[in-house]
Amino acid sequence: MYDLITELYPICRSMTGKGVRQTLEIVGRGMPLRTCEVPSGTRVFDWTVPKEWNIRDAYIRDPKGKKIVDLAQSNLHVVGYSVPVRRVMKLAELKQHLFTLPKRPDWIPYRTSYFKEDWGFCMSHSQLTGLDEGDYEVCIDSSLEDGRMNYGELLLEGESSDEVLISTHICHPSLCNDNLSGIAVAAQLAHLLQPLRLRYSYRFLFIPATLGSITWLSLNQEGTEKIKHGLVLAGVGDSGKTTYKKSRRGDAAIDKAACYVLGASGEDYGVLDFVPYGYDERQYCSPAFNLPVGVLARTPHGQYPQYHTSADDLSFVQAPFLANSLLKCLSILNVLENNAVCVNQNPWCEPQLGRRGIFRSFSERARNPDFEMALLWVLNYSDGHYSLLDIAERSGLAFEAIRLAADVLIEQQLLEERPAGKP
Amino acid sequence: MYDLITELYPICRSMTGKGVRQTLEIVGRGMPLRTCEVPSGTRVFDWTVPKEWNIRDAYIRDPKGKKIVDLAQSNLHVVGYSVPVRRVMKLAELKQHLFTLPKRPDWIPYRTSYFKEDWGFCMSHSQLTGLDEGDYEVCIDSSLEDGRMNYGELLLEGESSDEVLISTHICHPSLCNDNLSGIAVAAQLAHLLQPLRLRYSYRFLFIPATLGSITWLSLNQEGTEKIKHGLVLAGVGDSGKTTYKKSRRGDAAIDKAACYVLGASGEDYGVLDFVPYGYDERQYCSPAFNLPVGVLARTPHGQYPQYHTSADDLSFVQAPFLANSLLKCLSILNVLENNAVCVNQNPWCEPQLGRRGIFRSFSERARNPDFEMALLWVLNYSDGHYSLLDIAERSGLAFEAIRLAADVLIEQQLLEERPAGKP
Amino acid sequence: MYDLITELYPICRSMTGKGVRQTLEIVGRGMPLRTCEVPSGTRVFDWTVPKEWNIRDAYIRDPKGKKIVDLAQSNLHVVGYSVPVRRVMKLAELKQHLFTLPKRPDWIPYRTSYFKEDWGFCMSHSQLTGLDEGDYEVCIDSSLEDGRMNYGELLLEGESSDEVLISTHICHPSLCNDNLSGIAVAAQLAHLLQPLRLRYSYRFLFIPATLGSITWLSLNQEGTEKIKHGLVLAGVGDSGKTTYKKSRRGDAAIDKAACYVLGASGEDYGVLDFVPYGYDERQYCSPAFNLPVGVLARTPHGQYPQYHTSADDLSFVQAPFLANSLLKCLSILNVLENNAVCVNQNPWCEPQLGRRGIFRSFSERARNPDFEMALLWVLNYSDGHYSLLDIAERSGLAFEAIRLAADVLIEQQLLEERPAGKP
Repeated sequence: MYDLITELYPICRSMTGKGVRQTLEIVGRGMPLRTCEVPSGTRVFDWTVPKEWNIRDAYIRDPKGKKIVDLAQSNLHVVGYSVPVRRVMKLAELKQHLFTLPKRPDWIPYRTSYFKEDWGFCMSHSQLTGLDEGDYEVCIDSSLEDGRMNYGELLLEGESSDEVLISTHICHPSLCNDNLSGIAVAAQLAHLLQPLRLRYSYRFLFIPATLGSITWLSLNQEGTEKIKHGLVLAGVGDSGKTTYKKSRRGDAAIDKAACYVLGASGEDYGVLDFVPYGYDERQYCSPAFNLPVGVLARTPHGQYPQYHTSADDLSFVQAPFLANSLLKCLSILNVLENNAVCVNQNPWCEPQLGRRGIFRSFSERARNPDFEMALLWVLNYSDGHYSLLDIAERSGLAFEAIRLAADVLIEQQLLEERPAGKP
Repeated sequence: MYDLITELYPICRSMTGKGVRQTLEIVGRGMPLRTCEVPSGTRVFDWTVPKEWNIRDAYIRDPKGKKIVDLAQSNLHVVGYSVPVRRVMKLAELKQHLFTLPKRPDWIPYRTSYFKEDWGFCMSHSQLTGLDEGDYEVCIDSSLEDGRMNYGELLLEGESSDEVLISTHICHPSLCNDNLSGIAVAAQLAHLLQPLRLRYSYRFLFIPATLGSITWLSLNQEGTEKIKHGLVLAGVGDSGKTTYKKSRRGDAAIDKAACYVLGASGEDYGVLDFVPYGYDERQYCSPAFNLPVGVLARTPHGQYPQYHTSADDLSFVQAPFLANSLLKCLSILNVLENNAVCVNQNPWCEPQLGRRGIFRSFSERARNPDFEMALLWVLNYSDGHYSLLDIAERSGLAFEAIRLAADVLIEQQLLEERPAGKP
Repeated sequence: MYDLITELYPICRSMTGKGVRQTLEIVGRGMPLRTCEVPSGTRVFDWTVPKEWNIRDAYIRDPKGKKIVDLAQSNLHVVGYSVPVRRVMKLAELKQHLFTLPKRPDWIPYRTSYFKEDWGFCMSHSQLTGLDEGDYEVCIDSSLEDGRMNYGELLLEGESSDEVLISTHICHPSLCNDNLSGIAVAAQLAHLLQPLRLRYSYRFLFIPATLGSITWLSLNQEGTEKIKHGLVLAGVGDSGKTTYKKSRRGDAAIDKAACYVLGASGEDYGVLDFVPYGYDERQYCSPAFNLPVGVLARTPHGQYPQYHTSADDLSFVQAPFLANSLLKCLSILNVLENNAVCVNQNPWCEPQLGRRGIFRSFSERARNPDFEMALLWVLNYSDGHYSLLDIAERSGLAFEAIRLAADVLIEQQLLEERPAGKP
């Protein structure tokens, strides 16, 4: 995952353009990722797909002719969606198009101007304060023309047509945590799930933030009914504790599963209620969709100073944090895959487990001291009302122990698993 | 408000009689307050309107002929509803009719004998202990005859026939906090609301405690269905923190609005669950009515030593506390007036607020840093289920910010306000 | 109760056999306790009633011919349901049948082998470590033959056929807290309730643990519908605080009543949620029955070191703790007997209590300072929704005060008690 981030880091991405296509090509290696395209001007709900933006070169030369800002040095130097410029101007005029972070004088901020035709440069504040009066040559060799917006889509078909949505945004240029980390974890997840026989189908979306999800929802309005659970992955590579932001529903199965997994991890973690700002969950959880989609992140966006600056670089994300986030995702999906509502087939008093040899033969196999307890919990609470996850929560036993107990009881015909539906 | 209290303080009020009429006359200045009357003997539910009581003079002369107790000195000296007496008696006999507060030897208690024909005097304990043996001349020049019970009623008609009830008791003689403060705040509220165009109609009741509300409810049983919210005002002039006592329902809109306003005030405050003793809420919240009526007070009744004594005087209430209580009432009414359930007209993903120029033009007008957040909250939660007050509570933003955002969105036809009903 | 424990202590009980019958005979003195019997081999749900086990003698002689272990010394020495043995064997072979508590070297553990034909001895660990090599003579003079399983059943008929179940297990040999204490408290409860005219019928079960309740439920499946409340009594004689374990329902009337009584006791206490292990509540609360049966205990089973060892002896239980547990039971039953949903017959405002003379005449009789408050609480909340117990909880007043107020109001025809049903 860290290698993929390293490879994607230099590419100049934006909401549209070649950088996005190049990114999707790299991400899609070894998996049947489909690159979708939507023409500029397409109406998607209240929005319109914008023109395609591409940039070849951009620089500022100081009065002495020295390149003081150069796109080749950092993709962040140019405000995203800047219109072409090739002029000489006084410092005073130029300054109206320069953006810095006075409080972090060595960092370059990240800026875009998607919906207002404008241009600008981002630079360190220490550089700005050192500029002399005089004539500056400004060049932005960009194009903003009718074209297309691209996104990547991958469907891994499972036993059921019910889907789990994994969504991550791909429109940010050289920023590692936000959101090359999300791209890397989502891609690795797809690689790992691809060969498995799974209960759910898994839909991965690699999309430009906001307009990407709006576009996908607009084009796939009916398909949203199949989405039973979903996760937006963003900012999953920094050293902060894992944070789960609940879906708007607040008590969806994904919310329960994620809270359970974080709580059982033994690590510090955070759980946030839904708020209507953040990433693409804003759209998935807009009132007419209200999909059961939460967000897995580490330090919440905007709560670390490196956020949307050049300091969100290759040193800010680390392989162990990526791995930890990946494991959290797998654990959550494991709960979703294996959760079920079971029904005790012998609900009048306890069955005689001893004569079935369950205790002996299986407890060793399981090497699980909680195994007998788990059997009793599953038998008593499998009345068609409590799911295995509910039983794990109520008993304080591990979900895996509860699931193993259920499997053994099903084998013994003491338990029946209800056809899936919504667990 | 403090001036009104000063003017009303010397008047000798009781459940019935001239003092009540005189009080209503003063309170009703400059507003269309109707003085209602109910004849003695009228059945009101389980009760009967008592005879009218009036008093002209009352005193005790000691063996030396000196007036040691005199109604002219304090209205509290005579037990309310004392029957006429004009006799000479020994101290021992007299003592059976004297009431004092041994623990507060300088204060005069407040006593009534509404439902048992009796007579008595209240005095300071230090005076009682100084009395010599001998013959005392006792005079109570009162009348207890068929007459009427009076109360004041004022209806300010709003756009809707749905009503907000403001009720306050007027039967106590020279006691300032209990309840001249309630009378003053209610009267001022009426003055302030009178010129406004309001959504709700406002019904003000200035009534004798207990029997007044029982009588009004008995005479207006059908009218109670129009009461959507209500406040009993009592003890709103002392220095204690504001205390709201919930309606019997516990989750009525008035309860939510009052708790929200107190919580958002930044001041210390108290919230009490309903208990079936206190003021006229006992009747409004009796099980067959169960009206959504709470109580706004400062220190709860009975929890300050001055309660029902001569120490509840003009120094015990202060203008700033009266003003603070008035503001709390206005804030609560403001929430009730402006609360609404709205419906997002563009619920599929977020609308594109940028191209509508909302952010720029309004954010300056609003000078509200939370304005953009408020727009997102209102859009996401206006699904017909959450009221604007619910959204304010959930978001932690001020109700005013949420309402402003809703107004802007309504102007932009992105939101529709549901016809009132019960918010 | 302590005397009964002393008398029952020496008897060698097990799941079946003479010890059980002898125990039931002693317990049943002075009450119409019926000793029921079920033949070996009877199918009871998933189980089969086992053979009857009786034991006459059991000992081990060391190489010098000295009896080192003797059933006559302690019933715990023989593993329950041991098959007959009469052999000489080496220490190594014998050791495979010896059970001790290494951490408590002076105590003898309690062991059974109900469902696997086996034999064994329990002894102190200090004795085990002192054994020399050599030939040991082992004798278990037991019989394991078709016979019967016994249990005791007593029905005290009340006004209603609705039942309260009191269940306690009787299968443990010389162990005092677990569960001679439960037997003693249940028996004393039966003695005390027998002469009373009660609303509920009371069914007492003195049964072998697990298989006893399974058998009773199997034979009385339809009768279980009459059980409206139930208590399992076990471990009620030790010095620990009283602990109530809730029924599986968690909010049954018995749960509310027990929690209320423990909370109002002024003593330290514990309340546990239902878990599917413990005593016979496992069966009563199995999902198909889900009966409202909780457990009253002191220190929870397994949480004191003496549990299932020879240290659970006559010094471990004490008369005052037994008496305290008995009083808790009586208080809980008192709440169940007297709880009711009442309906205010005069729900429009408060009735005029003064003219009915209630305050005076009854308050002295009641000597209850909360009496007037209780009247107001009962009147306001008796809307057909709240039970008297609910009102006691909400008001913070004693259940007895609330019940007394209700009785007075019923006498005055201001209140009507609803025909029982489920309170």
